[in-house]
Amino acid sequence: MTDPVTEDREQGQTFMPKFDAAGLLTAVAVDSADGSVLMLAHMDAEALAKTQETGFAHFHSRSRGRLWMKGESSGHVLQVQAILVDCDQDAIVLQCVPAGPACHTLAPSCFYRRLEGGKLIRI
Amino acid sequence: MTDPVTEDREQGQTFMPKFDAAGLLTAVAVDSADGSVLMLAHMDAEALAKTQETGFAHFHSRSRGRLWMKGESSGHVLQVQAILVDCDQDAIVLQCVPAGPACHTLAPSCFYRRLEGGKLIRI
Repeated sequence: MTDPVTEDREQGQTFMPKFDAAGLLTAVAVDSADGSVLMLAHMDAEALAKTQETGFAHFHSRSRGRLWMKGESSGHVLQVQAILVDCDQDAIVLQCVPAGPACHTLAPSCFYRRLEGGKLIRI
Repeated sequence: MTDPVTEDREQGQTFMPKFDAAGLLTAVAVDSADGSVLMLAHMDAEALAKTQETGFAHFHSRSRGRLWMKGESSGHVLQVQAILVDCDQDAIVLQCVPAGPACHTLAPSCFYRRLEGGKLIRI
């Protein structure tokens, strides 16, 4: 059985993002052209609001402890076309048009290696 | 400039997963048929090892504080075909063949709603 709050969170129309103890939710940026995963980062309420307001992906840097817009220095911004929300509302998918390589290493995606036999193989 | 450890982590062949303070990394399960995002969950070292050992996705439940195999009660397991690792090795993508709906709500994916005008619309 599902309690009414969980039922509402999972089936309802009300957006009630569930931030974790650090005030963050996980965001997966995917390329809206082919659905491939570009990068993963975290958002606090401020980053989420900025993303919705501007249409460009903003995140909260855990290492730097601040808001950042993806591409703010490189120019490789992510234009957000749609935001999908998961069942328990603690994770979102950003369907994006990337303005360049999504990874700071200049790879198109951060996921450029496959684990094979304990080794990482570039794909 | 990139320091040698970071350089090795980002460009090398050595798998050195970077678990967070809680001992977890983030795993994004995608459908290997079309690349769509199915679900997002967390793995500790044990869950990662079990996934590699068995070929079925295992996670660490933060709420229940234990290892679980996705589908252990529903039968809706995720057969892992490949594991991709991101630049800083704190997130992975699991390319999976799902044995049924990936979401516990019986939706094919946990991301079954789109945020539109502040409301969640079922897709």
